[in-house]
Amino acid sequence: MSETKEQSKTTEPLVIAIDSSTSATKAVVVNKVGEVLSSGKAEIDLFTPAMDQYEHDPAQWWESTSTAIAQAAAGLSVEDRARVSAMCITHQRESFALVDENGAALRHAVLWLDSRAGEEIKEFGSPHIHELSGKPADTTPALYKMTWLSRHEPEVLAAADKVVDVHAYLAKKLVGRWVSAMGSADTLNLLDIAGRDYSPELLDIAGVRRDQMADLAEPASIIGPIAPDLLSSWALPEGVVLVAGVGDGQAAGLGTAAIAEDLAYVNVGTSIVSGVHSFEYQYSPAYRTLLGGIPGSYVLEIVQNSGSVLANWFRKELGNPLLDGALDPELDEAAAGIEPGSAGLLTVPYWNAVQSPHWDPFAKGMMVGFGSAHTRAHVYRSILEGMAIELRENLERVQASTGRQIRELRCTGGGSRSPLWRQIIADATGLPMVVSGVEEVSAQGAAMMAMAGIGAYSDVQSASEAMATFIERTEPNMEAYETYGQWADIQKDIYPALAPLFERIYAQSNKK
Amino acid sequence: MSETKEQSKTTEPLVIAIDSSTSATKAVVVNKVGEVLSSGKAEIDLFTPAMDQYEHDPAQWWESTSTAIAQAAAGLSVEDRARVSAMCITHQRESFALVDENGAALRHAVLWLDSRAGEEIKEFGSPHIHELSGKPADTTPALYKMTWLSRHEPEVLAAADKVVDVHAYLAKKLVGRWVSAMGSADTLNLLDIAGRDYSPELLDIAGVRRDQMADLAEPASIIGPIAPDLLSSWALPEGVVLVAGVGDGQAAGLGTAAIAEDLAYVNVGTSIVSGVHSFEYQYSPAYRTLLGGIPGSYVLEIVQNSGSVLANWFRKELGNPLLDGALDPELDEAAAGIEPGSAGLLTVPYWNAVQSPHWDPFAKGMMVGFGSAHTRAHVYRSILEGMAIELRENLERVQASTGRQIRELRCTGGGSRSPLWRQIIADATGLPMVVSGVEEVSAQGAAMMAMAGIGAYSDVQSASEAMATFIERTEPNMEAYETYGQWADIQKDIYPALAPLFERIYAQSNKK
Repeated sequence: MSETKEQSKTTEPLVIAIDSSTSATKAVVVNKVGEVLSSGKAEIDLFTPAMDQYEHDPAQWWESTSTAIAQAAAGLSVEDRARVSAMCITHQRESFALVDENGAALRHAVLWLDSRAGEEIKEFGSPHIHELSGKPADTTPALYKMTWLSRHEPEVLAAADKVVDVHAYLAKKLVGRWVSAMGSADTLNLLDIAGRDYSPELLDIAGVRRDQMADLAEPASIIGPIAPDLLSSWALPEGVVLVAGVGDGQAAGLGTAAIAEDLAYVNVGTSIVSGVHSFEYQYSPAYRTLLGGIPGSYVLEIVQNSGSVLANWFRKELGNPLLDGALDPELDEAAAGIEPGSAGLLTVPYWNAVQSPHWDPFAKGMMVGFGSAHTRAHVYRSILEGMAIELRENLERVQASTGRQIRELRCTGGGSRSPLWRQIIADATGLPMVVSGVEEVSAQGAAMMAMAGIGAYSDVQSASEAMATFIERTEPNMEAYETYGQWADIQKDIYPALAPLFERIYAQSNKK
Repeated sequence: MSETKEQSKTTEPLVIAIDSSTSATKAVVVNKVGEVLSSGKAEIDLFTPAMDQYEHDPAQWWESTSTAIAQAAAGLSVEDRARVSAMCITHQRESFALVDENGAALRHAVLWLDSRAGEEIKEFGSPHIHELSGKPADTTPALYKMTWLSRHEPEVLAAADKVVDVHAYLAKKLVGRWVSAMGSADTLNLLDIAGRDYSPELLDIAGVRRDQMADLAEPASIIGPIAPDLLSSWALPEGVVLVAGVGDGQAAGLGTAAIAEDLAYVNVGTSIVSGVHSFEYQYSPAYRTLLGGIPGSYVLEIVQNSGSVLANWFRKELGNPLLDGALDPELDEAAAGIEPGSAGLLTVPYWNAVQSPHWDPFAKGMMVGFGSAHTRAHVYRSILEGMAIELRENLERVQASTGRQIRELRCTGGGSRSPLWRQIIADATGLPMVVSGVEEVSAQGAAMMAMAGIGAYSDVQSASEAMATFIERTEPNMEAYETYGQWADIQKDIYPALAPLFERIYAQSNKK
């Protein structure tokens, strides 16, 4: 590039990345080098009509999106607003709405974290569906919850003009058509993933018709121009286009530019989500396979349900009550001084059940090896180590199943800001942890897709590599890595030994 | 009795019970109705020459005993001193000293809690030795540690004139002869317990000779007069006799008068020790069988290594740090408000390995069923429940093996002072918890034997029933008992599933 940075800022396009999550929708204005110029945010209400049921009012998906875009646009100068050229949606995955022809919801949307369909998962979940869709039987995919609706609310399901994910719902508002992105609709678990289209067999199990499904757009393709009246309401120029996005998990991997075969991303957030890109279809119990944000790509995604939610639980429930769950530098320091293995205390971190690699919704947390010499810091460290050892094992399964050798972890999320946790993960996995410099990494992924969609970069991969930034690198101690391997060999035998107990604990806990 | 209490106090005999424990020797002056008139106490130093090795200087056994008796005697009026008629020894069990003809120690005594003989336990421990001696292979009995000495210090062991328990060591000082009580020497694990004499086979494994062993006296029999010079040094009258005692665990059962077939005692102390009296020889993995303080009796003793030591560990390491392990009424109150089962969190309390019923020195603590809804109070309650459920299961094994029906628990120890813990144990076992009114319950048992020995009561049983006192009774909630039974069914499957891991955790923890 011969232009100076100052020049590039004034002449190059801007894009608005929309990230609609379970709690809020954010809109982020990003330039070609990945800098955030402005942003907006609006909350979404979570409804829990019954135990294990979690819903949204889809109208709020749109209201929060519109508000967030308005805020983000208002934060720009007149000149910068004129440079906005595209929008791209990333979003909470697996959640779905039933809507009429006008886009009005027939009932509340059923969310990814809703676990009402336990019976349906047991009845229909199978290795065959895993192979066909890339997704092990589990509580999050929409498939089983649609089956539940087909049994408990058959009229509503049948009456729906469309059954749509968040991307399609917002695309209808923005461009007037029911269009989902490949890597958005894929999370509903209705696609023959290798065939990249809806599977009649899966639609049949879900109890929905092909004509109720949104169209599918290739990632980073231009879906169409955004309605002029909307653009003018936000003081944005005419001609801004909507570029097909992807689910927020895949977008996060893109946001850290973890694309090459030897790179994995890991989001140490509420849960720990890690993955790699693949350009051929593969499936394994270690991960679920999703369509990625790069055309033709797959994302092999490890999902560990307990991340910072578990570290926070420990600090709140078993830490210093005066801190009420806040970060505790003294505890971190004491934990940092303990040798790998926490003096023989092993934690299997299934506090919130387990996805990779066991996909057991009944599993619960286990701690094994307690002795009187263990201190609070040992217990805390053991919990952090337990999560890191799980990640080590899951990454090894990914490598074994794909034949690749991972050499670096690109990390994001709150947990990646903790030097203690970062060092434990680097040591347990034997991989350097490189920290993303971006706060909103899923939005960053969507911005990369938007830039590629409008031709600011030749493809998504180039956009991703140019726009990703990193701020820190933690090297693994390979002696500690060896030690963790020996502990991991013991830890991995705990869950299989206790697995038969969890349905019994569940039944006994829920006895009336 | 036609005498008034005042009269009885002035004419009836007093006895001095000597309780020589791991930390101190206490001497307690007791009257015929079980009241304590005076007491004395002197500490004993604990030596730890190497990891897992615990020793005493036997000279301190005697020095502390002499000091404690002197203090107790000095606390009496001249008239009361004149009424002292007998002494009786109870003591830490399984510990032994190697001495020369004059009673001088050839090396430090090896204590019950010393665990140096792991290899010897593995090599010689067997169901046959359990059947012969009543004692499952375990770290506490002297047998295996004598074998260890015969390999590592053969000259010292061979040179010993006598190899003696605490009772024989103190008897030699008091009456000039090496005499142990049946229920004292039995804890060395060298007796053919049904034959009530040393077993040539066990002596051979231990590497000791029959002539190195002390004589055996029947419980509550008069061993002989205490040396006049000692008595005059304590200002006690001539003619005070030594009555054969028993180990402190058996003495505690006697101290609560838990003799009838439907009664069990439980000492909720550092560890939880519970037992019943039997008048025929029986053995089972649920308990170890010991000779009791009543002539012809056996005590079937459940030993759970974690009692208040574990509750204290939780409060110190995972409780409010401001309290530093002290009792926490707020925590107790919160725990009391939680339903039996602690919302599906099960604790197998093997923090300090397990004796009854698995006798696995490598076992460690396990907690299974953690979820995000568990609070500090859930975790604490789960630990208390885990210990109570273990006791329930062990008492059921005792009942199954003996065909008896236990109807009441006589309890002592610090834990029995906690209403929360008492209620949890009563509910988990389905048995009323009746709290002993005596602080030093082992000494009380020895006092009962002394009174019977000098004929103040017709036999030990009558003395025990007359001298035991109780202050409180906690009734079980039988609905909670049913619920605990369902949790117990799950809990009892945890250890067997994980048992193969503990030697691996031990080996990995101790890797150089």
